[in-house]
Amino acid sequence: MTDLAATYRAYLACLNARDWARLGDFVDEEVRRNGERLGVAGYRAMLERDVDEIPDLVFAVELLAVDPPTVAARLRFVCAPRGVFLGLAVNGRRVSFAENVFYQYRGDRIADVWSLIDRAAIEAQLMRSEISPPSGE
Amino acid sequence: MTDLAATYRAYLACLNARDWARLGDFVDEEVRRNGERLGVAGYRAMLERDVDEIPDLVFAVELLAVDPPTVAARLRFVCAPRGVFLGLAVNGRRVSFAENVFYQYRGDRIADVWSLIDRAAIEAQLMRSEISPPSGE
Repeated sequence: MTDLAATYRAYLACLNARDWARLGDFVDEEVRRNGERLGVAGYRAMLERDVDEIPDLVFAVELLAVDPPTVAARLRFVCAPRGVFLGLAVNGRRVSFAENVFYQYRGDRIADVWSLIDRAAIEAQLMRSEISPPSGE
Repeated sequence: MTDLAATYRAYLACLNARDWARLGDFVDEEVRRNGERLGVAGYRAMLERDVDEIPDLVFAVELLAVDPPTVAARLRFVCAPRGVFLGLAVNGRRVSFAENVFYQYRGDRIADVWSLIDRAAIEAQLMRSEISPPSGE
C-alpha cells in the first residue's frame, strides 16, 4: 500500500495549483460524488466551476483520518465567493466554512466522494455581516 | 493504544441502548461539540433531546476511518422525527440522511466532535413527499 496520506495531500496540492491536466492521476476514471457518477471530465468541470465562482479557493486540511481504502478530511475554506454560493448571496464577502468529506480509494485514485459542507456557518456569517457591516467599507 | 474502532462502536451501542448512565465512559468530562464546551451533562442533555424528538433514532455506521486519536464516521439515519427537525417540518415522516462527523479522542474518551448533518437531503425528501404523497395515506 502506498502512503495514502501523501497521496491525498498530493491531490489537494493539484487542486490548489489548478493543475487540471493531472487530475486523472488522483481521481478514478469512474469517480462518483455523493452517489452521482461524474467521471474525471465531470469532476474536472465541477472543480473548474467552483474555482470560477471562488477564485481564491484554497483546500486546507484541518483534520485528517487515513484508514485505507478510506480517507476522511475536515477541510477549512477561507475565501470570498463572487456571487451566489450554495444558494446564499455571498457577493464577494469573505467567509470561513468547513467541509467534512470521505473518500473511498480504488488503488491510489479516488473512486467515491461523500461530502457535506457547512452551509449554515456561511449563512450565520452573512447574517452577522448584515447586522454590523465591516469597518472601513 | 486500545482498539479505537471497538471503543467507538461501543459508544454508538451506548447511544442506541439509551444507556445514558454509561455515557461518561465514552465521552470526556470536558467534551466539546462544534467548538462549544458541553461537558458530559450538556452532551447527555443534547442526546436526550435528540431522542425525545426522534424516538426511533438509531446510529448506524456507513463509513469509518480510524486514525488515532481521530475517528471519522459517516453515519446513516433512517427515522421519523416527530415535529420540526433542523428547522424542517418533518412531522413524523420517515427520512434518510447522513452525518459526516469527526471525533478527537483523549485517551479512550471523545474530547471534540465536529459534525455536519445533511439537512439538504431531508429538505429534498420532504419536497418530494409533498409533490407525491405516499400511497396508502
